Amino acid sequence: MVKAVEYAKKEGVYVSANAEDASRSDEDFLIQFIKEAKRAGADRIRYCDTVGIMTPMEIYDRISRIKKAVDIDIEMHTHNDFGMATANAIAGIKAGANYAGVTVNGLGERAGNAALEEVIMSLKYLLKFNMEQKTEKLRELCEYVANASNRQLPSWKPIVGTSVFTHESGIHTDGAIKNPRTYEVFDPKDVGLTSQIVIGKHSGTAGIKKKLSDYNITIDENTARSILEEVRSVSVELKRPLTDKELLNIYYEYTNQDIKHVV
Amino acid sequence: MVKAVEYAKKEGVYVSANAEDASRSDEDFLIQFIKEAKRAGADRIRYCDTVGIMTPMEIYDRISRIKKAVDIDIEMHTHNDFGMATANAIAGIKAGANYAGVTVNGLGERAGNAALEEVIMSLKYLLKFNMEQKTEKLRELCEYVANASNRQLPSWKPIVGTSVFTHESGIHTDGAIKNPRTYEVFDPKDVGLTSQIVIGKHSGTAGIKKKLSDYNITIDENTARSILEEVRSVSVELKRPLTDKELLNIYYEYTNQDIKHVV
Repeated sequence: MVKAVEYAKKEGVYVSANAEDASRSDEDFLIQFIKEAKRAGADRIRYCDTVGIMTPMEIYDRISRIKKAVDIDIEMHTHNDFGMATANAIAGIKAGANYAGVTVNGLGERAGNAALEEVIMSLKYLLKFNMEQKTEKLRELCEYVANASNRQLPSWKPIVGTSVFTHESGIHTDGAIKNPRTYEVFDPKDVGLTSQIVIGKHSGTAGIKKKLSDYNITIDENTARSILEEVRSVSVELKRPLTDKELLNIYYEYTNQDIKHVV
Repeated sequence: MVKAVEYAKKEGVYVSANAEDASRSDEDFLIQFIKEAKRAGADRIRYCDTVGIMTPMEIYDRISRIKKAVDIDIEMHTHNDFGMATANAIAGIKAGANYAGVTVNGLGERAGNAALEEVIMSLKYLLKFNMEQKTEKLRELCEYVANASNRQLPSWKPIVGTSVFTHESGIHTDGAIKNPRTYEVFDPKDVGLTSQIVIGKHSGTAGIKKKLSDYNITIDENTARSILEEVRSVSVELKRPLTDKELLNIYYEYTNQDIKHVV
């Protein structure tokens, strides 16, 4: 490694020395490896949790000790085998790492790597970093990569899934209508999505009223309660939330209006 | 809350008091809430990270302080909005929580909750807990729930995805053949999966040899190298790894054997 780093630096390039399987390495050996890399001129070391077996608390402690032992830039390279890739990248950054290797949608070997969209938004909203990235293109970017890689984006994908800004349950919908930040940490526009209310078996009257108001229909609490009863029964039968059209049909049937009014 | 808990206890039931949005609550208020719940007879409190905005280090610190302030059983209820639901559940457990609310496949509102399969395997292999769960049924269970909930299991789903025990790249495949634990923390059988080598553009000769040996074909290094060249070119053209049949075709073409030999 030392010879390779020395050669690369002699040729004038930026060098990130890769500490493969760092998380399973003996710590004294690892620190010696990093010291040698630095002495040879490496600009950065890459801490690899190659098989994704670290927990964030372990990462935090380990990166803190490394930073104390050697003053060098550190890049986190984390894997998602136990579902902790993003949390581990963030834990490393909290402990002093200043780079994170990420991939769009978390693409990568096995269960993948830390996801760009999750790490960026975590740094911005959880660690309160001053981020300059144009995050409003994230959904578009993630969709593009999902198509190109033939790996569909699940609707529940953190940050960019189409379901992450939907609200169905009565209490959540009511809260979200009163103040969007009740159940949304950031504005969905920040990542190129829009918030929406889904009408289904968990809905309450506030959701029904709000949804109908989008179609310029104002109803009182009694009407909302009657419609809600029908909504729940249809939704349970269909095993899914209702479309706007289905909700409107229920409303028009209830008010004895001709179904042709439905938009 | 106090009245509800007292009433429930009087009726002789087990009570878990729900601390909704605990992660955004003032800590002094939260501790007072928990003390009152305990005094009223609650058996457990549920710490809710309702909008999924905690990082594992914060969870760890907060649960540690709560445990110190009030001696009561704690259940973690974590959300996956920033991709940290599993890591946050584990962080809480490390800090003294003794229950975790989980769902199969992480199903739940928005980006979902901590996934049963990830939390169980993390407790077993990362925190080294003595787990009694029959984990070899996990893949089957997750598939069942995926079908029932109409939410397909991505192949890269941590713990139970079909791709998480596949190896393609030369160095990984070579390592995995020499010792499965090189890139697999636990035996895929533990969760009802099998390990497999995928032949594609990242393959090396060890992978080609191993795959052909599954069909009782032994080849030397030179043959492997020639076949590998063709494998890479076909894989790049098809933009995907090769099926076993495609690999066998390449082998038979290379050795001038009639294609009808292909199984």
